[in-house]
Amino acid sequence: MLAEIITIGDEILIGQIVDTNSAYIATELNKIGVQVVQITSVQDEKNHILESLANAEKRVDIVLLTGGLGPTKDDITKLTLCDFFDDQLVLNEKALQNIYELFEKHLNRTPNQQNLLQAHLPSKAIALENKFGTAPGMWIEKDNTLFISMPGVPYEMKGLMQNEVLPKLQKKFKRPIIVHKTILTTGMGESAIAEIIEDFENKLPQEIKLAYLPSLGRVRLRLSTKGINEAVLHSAIDNHVKQLQGLIGDIIIGYDEETSIEEVVANLLIKNKQTMSLAESCTGGQMARKITKMSGASQYFVGGFVTYATSSKSKILGVPKELIDKHTVVSAQVAEAMAINAKKMYDTDYAISTTGIAGPTKGDANEDVGTVFIGIATPQGVLTEKFNFGKDRQRVITNAANKGFELLRKEILKN
Amino acid sequence: MLAEIITIGDEILIGQIVDTNSAYIATELNKIGVQVVQITSVQDEKNHILESLANAEKRVDIVLLTGGLGPTKDDITKLTLCDFFDDQLVLNEKALQNIYELFEKHLNRTPNQQNLLQAHLPSKAIALENKFGTAPGMWIEKDNTLFISMPGVPYEMKGLMQNEVLPKLQKKFKRPIIVHKTILTTGMGESAIAEIIEDFENKLPQEIKLAYLPSLGRVRLRLSTKGINEAVLHSAIDNHVKQLQGLIGDIIIGYDEETSIEEVVANLLIKNKQTMSLAESCTGGQMARKITKMSGASQYFVGGFVTYATSSKSKILGVPKELIDKHTVVSAQVAEAMAINAKKMYDTDYAISTTGIAGPTKGDANEDVGTVFIGIATPQGVLTEKFNFGKDRQRVITNAANKGFELLRKEILKN
Repeated sequence: MLAEIITIGDEILIGQIVDTNSAYIATELNKIGVQVVQITSVQDEKNHILESLANAEKRVDIVLLTGGLGPTKDDITKLTLCDFFDDQLVLNEKALQNIYELFEKHLNRTPNQQNLLQAHLPSKAIALENKFGTAPGMWIEKDNTLFISMPGVPYEMKGLMQNEVLPKLQKKFKRPIIVHKTILTTGMGESAIAEIIEDFENKLPQEIKLAYLPSLGRVRLRLSTKGINEAVLHSAIDNHVKQLQGLIGDIIIGYDEETSIEEVVANLLIKNKQTMSLAESCTGGQMARKITKMSGASQYFVGGFVTYATSSKSKILGVPKELIDKHTVVSAQVAEAMAINAKKMYDTDYAISTTGIAGPTKGDANEDVGTVFIGIATPQGVLTEKFNFGKDRQRVITNAANKGFELLRKEILKN
Repeated sequence: MLAEIITIGDEILIGQIVDTNSAYIATELNKIGVQVVQITSVQDEKNHILESLANAEKRVDIVLLTGGLGPTKDDITKLTLCDFFDDQLVLNEKALQNIYELFEKHLNRTPNQQNLLQAHLPSKAIALENKFGTAPGMWIEKDNTLFISMPGVPYEMKGLMQNEVLPKLQKKFKRPIIVHKTILTTGMGESAIAEIIEDFENKLPQEIKLAYLPSLGRVRLRLSTKGINEAVLHSAIDNHVKQLQGLIGDIIIGYDEETSIEEVVANLLIKNKQTMSLAESCTGGQMARKITKMSGASQYFVGGFVTYATSSKSKILGVPKELIDKHTVVSAQVAEAMAINAKKMYDTDYAISTTGIAGPTKGDANEDVGTVFIGIATPQGVLTEKFNFGKDRQRVITNAANKGFELLRKEILKN
């Protein structure tokens, strides 16, 4: 079962918006055994959309469109679909009722003319209920291809996928089973890993695929296979994961849903019933954000400081001013004091501190841009480490945050 | 001058990676007057890549590829390009030297066999120097189409775009001028705005386009036009911006580069030489992160608290325990005390506080999931407001953060 995603909207093609919808849709389709073979982003331009629809129809069984369903004049998806299916817009009673209900429930006013126009759909379309917005989804079958159209607003699209599209797809199609296993590694580059597992890779049976997914500070390895017998597929994948554990076990830090080091840390702390706190300077809240983004954070995260200005490190965190004057604010000594004090003030088992120069300018420091000291306070004591993460502000911040979690993981595992 | 971006990699099509490269490339090309008409993501699969290349060649003048240049076996872009151009891989001396230099400079070891293989390029390709990785970019001209291939790792691709691709494109082509103006609004939905500016939109001359770019809590309106006389284009756009200011001036909060409310707040505080601090609970560091992501944050941001656990609000921020017991932790009274204490402790002109229930569970509170109290401490006093941002954790957090900045902006403008 093959699918293509077509995202419609000038805003994607001029780069004002990053298309996050496609990754979400692809992940969800994959889970039910539908393979996305192409993602196409096109402008709000009728002929180009028509061409993409015609091409996709040749290639795949399911075409999913997002975008261009808004109430404004630049949204032309519905009219274009009418052209494509030789159809016309008609008032859809179910969609109309939904719009009235949404306005009554959330906005406490009656819909305006433009809102009501959203209840006009191609006559061949089945309306899919959008619980979070006025543009209904659409389900249109043509010969052997299924077309699904959804709004581009991410939470509306997600609601439609979960409540309407995925259940209906599962009902309609029988799907081959796809089994993936993703292995999260840290501290070694793509080529270095490839060198170590070269033999393993050469001996991989044809039905098992290996992909390298590198990103800042980590490489994920994904083994995948597909077929009809789920037990056989899982056993084949598990067998190969074991081989990898034998080869690169020391750099493996997590699996599958654990796509980030902070998830690995979270799972360890929850398992151990331990707590942590933060004293961030150069990471500026990113570490706290990474933790609290995950639900359940309150089980292990007590709180954090974002002591951004030098003065606030003394005033709020109690780092002695003399220590800062003597060693400068970007120093091992200050990182150490920050971690110790955060651990004590929040009364946690662990604390991570960061102090560094994210750039582009040097601020109150003597060190080079990119220098970061990370401190880890543990039940046994405190350690600090110095890094240089280069000259790009966002990379410095992200690398420092990841490295902080990585150092903490090592300490937790020691205890 | 039309362009298409082709991103290659299974990881995009199974949804493990969001394609942020395309938005970056599109933005940069737009600035030099190259219009991206399609973005296509395809698997690491030779025939499919070949088909995409052939289709793109028919459609556009410039085809930019990213991905599939890694040193591992699943990276097949170079071999596929050889097929497409009827070419073969040859050792590129310039690329080889760059690899040796990178290893000496950054890794202090000699490259392995796989690293060296990256210096083999199609003979028809001009190597583009990659300062941040071992995979060189490639520039291949065929008949009237230019093909540019870059690695998929974002910072390597960005380096190549800035140092090699954009300068070479500007040298090679003469481009039409595109002029955009983006208007950032808040507090009104897409259809409500459309209703107010309906006449304006109907009267727009054909050469001026208006697009609506809605996202959580804000709508951006983009006016654009293209032509050859820059002064004429700017004057036409400025004239229409003025008309919009007359119609919806009260909801306009920023322009162009100000794509977010936190940037608007940052610019106001810098202009006024004022400072702010934060006391975050349910936003969990996202507000601090939004601020410190921008360089120059130290000019106005002194620091913040992420008092996540209820206990830490008393222990660290000094919110009286009796106040919490009496009103519960998610209450106007607690938000007020948090904002006042943060302002005082960090000694700033303003402070924002958040306390709420991001969900999915209710934690230590009586209120519904999605309820958030925001406090704003100002030189004149303190105010709080209650919101409900729905049931989705990420939406609650992001909406609360945006709303906090929005409320602060209003207060700054009063002073």
